[in-house]
Amino acid sequence: MDSEKSYFITAEEAPAPLTATAEGRVRFQEVDAMGIVWHGHYASFFEQGRIAFGDRYGMSYQEFRRQRTPAPIVRYHCDYKRPLPFDSYYTVETCLHWNDAARLDFSYIIRSSGREVCATGYTVQLFTDKDGEICLLLPEWLLSFRRYWQRGDWRQGPWRAMEEA
Amino acid sequence: MDSEKSYFITAEEAPAPLTATAEGRVRFQEVDAMGIVWHGHYASFFEQGRIAFGDRYGMSYQEFRRQRTPAPIVRYHCDYKRPLPFDSYYTVETCLHWNDAARLDFSYIIRSSGREVCATGYTVQLFTDKDGEICLLLPEWLLSFRRYWQRGDWRQGPWRAMEEA
Amino acid sequence: MDSEKSYFITAEEAPAPLTATAEGRVRFQEVDAMGIVWHGHYASFFEQGRIAFGDRYGMSYQEFRRQRTPAPIVRYHCDYKRPLPFDSYYTVETCLHWNDAARLDFSYIIRSSGREVCATGYTVQLFTDKDGEICLLLPEWLLSFRRYWQRGDWRQGPWRAMEEA
Amino acid sequence: MDSEKSYFITAEEAPAPLTATAEGRVRFQEVDAMGIVWHGHYASFFEQGRIAFGDRYGMSYQEFRRQRTPAPIVRYHCDYKRPLPFDSYYTVETCLHWNDAARLDFSYIIRSSGREVCATGYTVQLFTDKDGEICLLLPEWLLSFRRYWQRGDWRQGPWRAMEEA
Repeated sequence: MDSEKSYFITAEEAPAPLTATAEGRVRFQEVDAMGIVWHGHYASFFEQGRIAFGDRYGMSYQEFRRQRTPAPIVRYHCDYKRPLPFDSYYTVETCLHWNDAARLDFSYIIRSSGREVCATGYTVQLFTDKDGEICLLLPEWLLSFRRYWQRGDWRQGPWRAMEEA
Repeated sequence: MDSEKSYFITAEEAPAPLTATAEGRVRFQEVDAMGIVWHGHYASFFEQGRIAFGDRYGMSYQEFRRQRTPAPIVRYHCDYKRPLPFDSYYTVETCLHWNDAARLDFSYIIRSSGREVCATGYTVQLFTDKDGEICLLLPEWLLSFRRYWQRGDWRQGPWRAMEEA
Repeated sequence: MDSEKSYFITAEEAPAPLTATAEGRVRFQEVDAMGIVWHGHYASFFEQGRIAFGDRYGMSYQEFRRQRTPAPIVRYHCDYKRPLPFDSYYTVETCLHWNDAARLDFSYIIRSSGREVCATGYTVQLFTDKDGEICLLLPEWLLSFRRYWQRGDWRQGPWRAMEEA
Repeated sequence: MDSEKSYFITAEEAPAPLTATAEGRVRFQEVDAMGIVWHGHYASFFEQGRIAFGDRYGMSYQEFRRQRTPAPIVRYHCDYKRPLPFDSYYTVETCLHWNDAARLDFSYIIRSSGREVCATGYTVQLFTDKDGEICLLLPEWLLSFRRYWQRGDWRQGPWRAMEEA
């Protein structure tokens, strides 16, 4: 995929995607016998992206747990463009795309310190109830999250602080 | 994706896919805080699948190295169906699909010991030269490999043994 | 450490150690930029050893969980002798040493397929209660386990089966 | 081990240890089914410590490679004090202890964000030649490094810069 293109098609009137950026440095045990990051470790980089996203928008893993709304990944995709060598710095730009359904559509761009695109990808998460069954309705707290997203006013920080105010 | 469907479309007259099966047992450090395999570790399961495939068809990682024909993964995709808990046994059915181009199209089905489909996925590999540039032509040794595939006669074991005989 | 020597000193009259052997094959993502297993992954090999031990003697991780007697590792030690390359086969000989105290003393020997010693090591586990506090008394089910060990009669398989008979 | 005690005994007249501190945040895939960092992942934390040390004192992995002086870990030891939960912040204090022999003696203290000691440990590295044989003499560039250490003057930054000046 070209990094300009999007993995998700959203309606024209949908709110613009929300983005966050994480930074990392390639660890020694993340590189393979060729001295570059093993392709499987990008899942960990995407995960760092979602963590940074959660930090910024009050949507942390702990929040999902507190709300008892597990959101397992049901689809994972990665396109590799350029290798990342040992000890190099990288950024993960994470982007949540609007979707009316009860799911989370994240896309990712991993760039080297020289701003070259090294990999792009996406994940899809659904929601499950306590028996592991797929939920067709978005959990209440994420409906609230979406209202803030729709209003487009994130200036005062994470939505939860705003909600409480 | 439904496990019946294929990730790759091949021409009707193309030789049937080649398959191999690997077996594994979920390790303790592969499960996450929910007690199920962390989604990123499936890349390791697919890798076990390709290793088993290489064992069966004389197409090992060492062979790629010996032939100086790196075949980096440029696309990785996984669809998750059912979680795999700690210590459970699984199989990885790996399938190489015919493609006239200079690329390797593998698909995978991971099943629990109860034969339920837990995940499916695919990878695409291209070939690079010593400068890391994409090769448009298949390496010589893989052309030979494809001739055997086309002839459909694998009864005597890996193609290399047949080649030498 | 020389592989002949023991990491644990046990009283002369103590029952002989119990042993079990696991087999494995080095995975691609376990080797580092030098093409040999990254030193940190040996913890996973030792873990495979403890799993094989639990299989043989009815002392699985699930049993610890069922009995609500967590046994966290409080000390881990590894001495490296020879590197293990990608795709090589290895064995993990795991040995439980008698100790009168409420702890588990395991030692390990990792050998290449050529039976050369690649690494040796040991772990110490203590028992904790539901608040994470160290228990000074061995859990009841492990006292029973030790009685079988002392009697030295494992011919009929895991101790639990014997207990039930 | 008590965190006050040292794993290495150095002569009284030896130069004081050199120290560096790394910071990290526990990743999701680093926690196990109990929701705490799996004991084997501390090897990665110690590695982060050595990287930070190399950054500070001009002794990076790349430098070892450039100088063709591999320094494999021959002994690894970790004592666990308190668990680290998912998403928690930690520091790794890394300490190089003087040793006249051709070896590197590092000790480590991992602390939670609340400054509690979570784990301590040490590693020993030896030097090998191109055939993998142990070297009894310290490589030339590290002799130079030790001279600066002995003089105790690190105010102007990494030793290499000083050497070149």
